[in-house]
Amino acid sequence: MEAELITIGDEILIGQIVDTNSAWMAQKLNDEGINIRQITSISDKPDHIISTLREAGQKSSIVLVTGGLGPTKDDRTKSALCSYFGTTLIENGAVLDHIAQLLIPRGILMNSLNRDQALVPASATILHNQLGTAPGLWFKYDDTIYVFMPGVPFEMKYLMENEVLPRIKRLYNTTTILHRTILTQGLGESSLAEKIEYWEDSLPENISLAYLPSPQSVRLRLSARGDNKKYLMKLIDEKIKELEEIIPTYIFGFEDETMAGNIGKLLCERGMNLGVAESCTGGNIAHFITLNPGSSVYFKGGIVAYSNEVKVNVLGIDPNLIADRGAVSKDVVEAMAVGARKVLKTDYAIATSGIAGPDGGTPDKPVGTVWIAVAGPDRVISKVSNFANHRERNIIRSSQTALNMLRLELLKKYYTV
Amino acid sequence: MEAELITIGDEILIGQIVDTNSAWMAQKLNDEGINIRQITSISDKPDHIISTLREAGQKSSIVLVTGGLGPTKDDRTKSALCSYFGTTLIENGAVLDHIAQLLIPRGILMNSLNRDQALVPASATILHNQLGTAPGLWFKYDDTIYVFMPGVPFEMKYLMENEVLPRIKRLYNTTTILHRTILTQGLGESSLAEKIEYWEDSLPENISLAYLPSPQSVRLRLSARGDNKKYLMKLIDEKIKELEEIIPTYIFGFEDETMAGNIGKLLCERGMNLGVAESCTGGNIAHFITLNPGSSVYFKGGIVAYSNEVKVNVLGIDPNLIADRGAVSKDVVEAMAVGARKVLKTDYAIATSGIAGPDGGTPDKPVGTVWIAVAGPDRVISKVSNFANHRERNIIRSSQTALNMLRLELLKKYYTV
Repeated sequence: MEAELITIGDEILIGQIVDTNSAWMAQKLNDEGINIRQITSISDKPDHIISTLREAGQKSSIVLVTGGLGPTKDDRTKSALCSYFGTTLIENGAVLDHIAQLLIPRGILMNSLNRDQALVPASATILHNQLGTAPGLWFKYDDTIYVFMPGVPFEMKYLMENEVLPRIKRLYNTTTILHRTILTQGLGESSLAEKIEYWEDSLPENISLAYLPSPQSVRLRLSARGDNKKYLMKLIDEKIKELEEIIPTYIFGFEDETMAGNIGKLLCERGMNLGVAESCTGGNIAHFITLNPGSSVYFKGGIVAYSNEVKVNVLGIDPNLIADRGAVSKDVVEAMAVGARKVLKTDYAIATSGIAGPDGGTPDKPVGTVWIAVAGPDRVISKVSNFANHRERNIIRSSQTALNMLRLELLKKYYTV
Repeated sequence: MEAELITIGDEILIGQIVDTNSAWMAQKLNDEGINIRQITSISDKPDHIISTLREAGQKSSIVLVTGGLGPTKDDRTKSALCSYFGTTLIENGAVLDHIAQLLIPRGILMNSLNRDQALVPASATILHNQLGTAPGLWFKYDDTIYVFMPGVPFEMKYLMENEVLPRIKRLYNTTTILHRTILTQGLGESSLAEKIEYWEDSLPENISLAYLPSPQSVRLRLSARGDNKKYLMKLIDEKIKELEEIIPTYIFGFEDETMAGNIGKLLCERGMNLGVAESCTGGNIAHFITLNPGSSVYFKGGIVAYSNEVKVNVLGIDPNLIADRGAVSKDVVEAMAVGARKVLKTDYAIATSGIAGPDGGTPDKPVGTVWIAVAGPDRVISKVSNFANHRERNIIRSSQTALNMLRLELLKKYYTV
């Protein structure tokens, strides 16, 4: 079973945006055992759209198209579709109602651009787009499935997960490719590879391993191919169990889990709560935590103590301690964690203090030096890390490292590295 | 003048890597006035390579190909090239020497895979790859230029900058394309389109407009084409000046600027500083601000007041006020901003309180209801917004809206919508 992905619009062709949609879609389709034959980016010129659809449809059973839909730019795309599929535009009542529903709470009156979005090709099956005004369009034409979605990533993902993938699964009996992603934190890619070398060599022929590094973690993806799904699941589970014995403290989750989400579960299980005191991470740890729905159950709040004045006035740190040891020090970061625990009245508190860069480094404490502390009911722990010379990456890596320290403390695992 | 980009290899098709090469190449070619007609990713199957080269060569004058070259994977690609260009492989002495030079300091003995890399199609012009073992290959065939480069980003960039772009510049007298991106905040795509309709219609033939919406802002991109760069710059500047008169409060920057970065500049100019009190945005506003290098000059810190207890204990809000009006209310959010200004001792403070979702909504205050306040030396202002039903988007939009409120207050512009 083969599919093609097409993106319509100038943004990618002029290099203004990187096409991240296609990688995401390719992964999801791969999970269903569908190979991607080709990925194509084109402009919204109608003749180019039509010839690209024709070529793709001749070679693949599924053609997924993103972009070219949206209030200000869908005329050309829609008329190209009508011409290709031999149909005309009609107003769809359900789509019009949905657009009106979206606009009302925002206090926006429907204008003609909004109304035009309810015009859809008559022969299309309409895929409800809960998150936006442009619906997805599904065509079956000459034995090929064509699907059109907006290019806005979260709308595309919503449509893929709720409408497109379930329909594709129902339509086709696909070979099984099972993917499992293992999330690790605390080891770089090459150190990790060295640590798990024997395990990697022991993987059977039909299981492949990929390293997917990012500033937040190194993910390991196992892909198993075969006909017997149950057998594959058992096989892959066994290999993961072996891996967990080799690197027990480095694995913090699987698939789409996040470190902060995992910590949320651990805190809920223990009936405990959390606060943060952030200097160099500047609110990002609180942000990572509060991205999780329901985080108000276990997260009480935080102090972004960016200036020393706030460290003293709000967290109650002795100004002499800061003067003596420096804000980026073991003593100050521990005092921040203890202070946050007291001010926010929480069971646990995380604190960070470091030099995110690009300026502010000294020979003693170069850019990337970050002290992290965790204070809990029993004890205060802290450690220093040396990250790289890139501000955004430092913030992300410090945040993840801090959360991982708390995770291991909650699990009472001895922290290594 | 049109070009096409082709990537060869599975990594992109299985979604393992995002194709960042194409965006980089597209920008570089655009700067030379060369349009990208199409970007295509394919596997390394020889027949697929050949048919893709043929289609691209029929439609474009320049075809740039990355990937499919390298010690372990170039056999299939090179034999496809020989078949397409009607040539054979010969050993190139200069390439062989270069490979040997690269291997010596790494202490690697040349193996047959390395030696095979010195086999190149006889009809190709060889482009010296200082940074790797696989050379670039340049063909002129049927009035089209075809260039093949390794997919490793730094090798591709080296070849583009040192070999490919200089040759293209010498070969073609290229037209100029200028892009300017205008960043707006506060209007959805369709309302914005309506507001600037006459202006859009007044754009001359050689300037085109694109809407690029994201949760953070709607970007407007103007693209001007012509021969006279100075004239184009003047023309585009005039149209932007006109636009600024039509939507003065909605434009917050240009190109890669961020809202928070812009605010940093405004605060520095005024010698003023800032603090935040965040409930529903959970630290994200502080994070947006502290992503900017040097933000410690104007950002003192923040309180993430996620629980009501922290609102009361740290920000000093009257618990009766929360009980009477609810945490998501005009009175509480204004008290939060005033409290933050006092506790953090800042000139300005931003506060947010809302329902990020997916749960916690009521008929009165549905998910997406967000109160925002800004307290300054002169006054406290606040407003309510109604965003959508998507947690992460709500957090981002609330953060941007709050920062924009502060921006307009700093500029003393009356806030509309």
